[in-house]
Amino acid sequence: MSVYTRLAELGLELPPAPRPVAAYIPWVRTGNLIYTSGQVPLVDGKPLCVGVVPTEVPPDKAQAAARLCALNMLAVLHAATDEALDRVTKVVRLGVFVASSPGFTAHPAVGNGASELMVSVFGDEIGRHARSTVGCSSLPLGVPVEVEGVFEIR
Amino acid sequence: MSVYTRLAELGLELPPAPRPVAAYIPWVRTGNLIYTSGQVPLVDGKPLCVGVVPTEVPPDKAQAAARLCALNMLAVLHAATDEALDRVTKVVRLGVFVASSPGFTAHPAVGNGASELMVSVFGDEIGRHARSTVGCSSLPLGVPVEVEGVFEIR
Amino acid sequence: MSVYTRLAELGLELPPAPRPVAAYIPWVRTGNLIYTSGQVPLVDGKPLCVGVVPTEVPPDKAQAAARLCALNMLAVLHAATDEALDRVTKVVRLGVFVASSPGFTAHPAVGNGASELMVSVFGDEIGRHARSTVGCSSLPLGVPVEVEGVFEIR
Repeated sequence: MSVYTRLAELGLELPPAPRPVAAYIPWVRTGNLIYTSGQVPLVDGKPLCVGVVPTEVPPDKAQAAARLCALNMLAVLHAATDEALDRVTKVVRLGVFVASSPGFTAHPAVGNGASELMVSVFGDEIGRHARSTVGCSSLPLGVPVEVEGVFEIR
Repeated sequence: MSVYTRLAELGLELPPAPRPVAAYIPWVRTGNLIYTSGQVPLVDGKPLCVGVVPTEVPPDKAQAAARLCALNMLAVLHAATDEALDRVTKVVRLGVFVASSPGFTAHPAVGNGASELMVSVFGDEIGRHARSTVGCSSLPLGVPVEVEGVFEIR
Repeated sequence: MSVYTRLAELGLELPPAPRPVAAYIPWVRTGNLIYTSGQVPLVDGKPLCVGVVPTEVPPDKAQAAARLCALNMLAVLHAATDEALDRVTKVVRLGVFVASSPGFTAHPAVGNGASELMVSVFGDEIGRHARSTVGCSSLPLGVPVEVEGVFEIR
């Protein structure tokens, strides 16, 4: 089944590819790998929410923000593959950064917002990936989560 | 000398490959690179210690935890190479994340727990690697250190 | 125009390649990729400044520190390319870690210190890169910023 069909079935629409907020670009290709810049949970150019988890942003909201980061990453990847997401042969790695207070321990649940979207969209074989999930003191624009990725394409 | 001989000489036994604590997998291969997911210092499924360095976990304990992360990573790599660690041709990069308080400065010493194990096991030529070591506000499960890696295999 | 000519026009001199502060090496090559270890803002072996942004180090000073990290990375890359920086065909990715207090939001401006140097030295086509910029609770030696990179070479 096409990635675009899955997106439609999930009721998801790709946003316009987010513009970088600084002097860099959204993705780079080297060989058959695409590196995507860290994506933040922007909707129409504005953060979905801001603050640290869990004191200012509850974990389930942060999980939704991670899912939005991943959706924005798909928009970048759509552009990177000349609008052919079916050229993605493997989601290689996600790096998930969670703005969190010192006592927070549930980073993996937050990261699942991004990971599960990848598996839903690409299926198990292509979508399952290596992942690191860590806690940050703060993130750009005050967002609670940022997600970067490495993808293999044909 | 075989990697498994070195492990035996160091008195180390590979644990069962840690299971991911969330919706991702322990490693992905792309081309001749293996990306391993962030490893935490679990023993028999439980954290070796929890807390922030140095206020809750002393640096030498965190160094031991980093070494344990690396041992768990070797277990993942053992699986990724079809139980043939001698197929590893280069430890390319380690990323070391240390849960630490704002005034902490000795992250490199903590990271050495992981780096030195790699060199002990693979030898200088294969084992020496690029590394980034940074301080995190918190980490999954409350552990003081998490280590991710990229490896070249044949 | 040669990278070395651009460096001269910018009034920049490559420092000696920084020595690692621990049990790892400054760079590793795998295939046509160079991974560089996390670089910190050292001048003559000493930190340009120490502390957390913005409470102890103002953002513009941190941006200058990020630029210095990038200059040190160029020195590493100069060594990695057998003193032939013109062999760099793409700056693939920078990872920028900013030691910052919980309320800080301007990490991208800090990271630009590194990103803009890459574009100045390598030009738009080669120099523009993917980037992740995140906030850390602390960094090695107390520095306010650390930068790691992946480069494609011929």
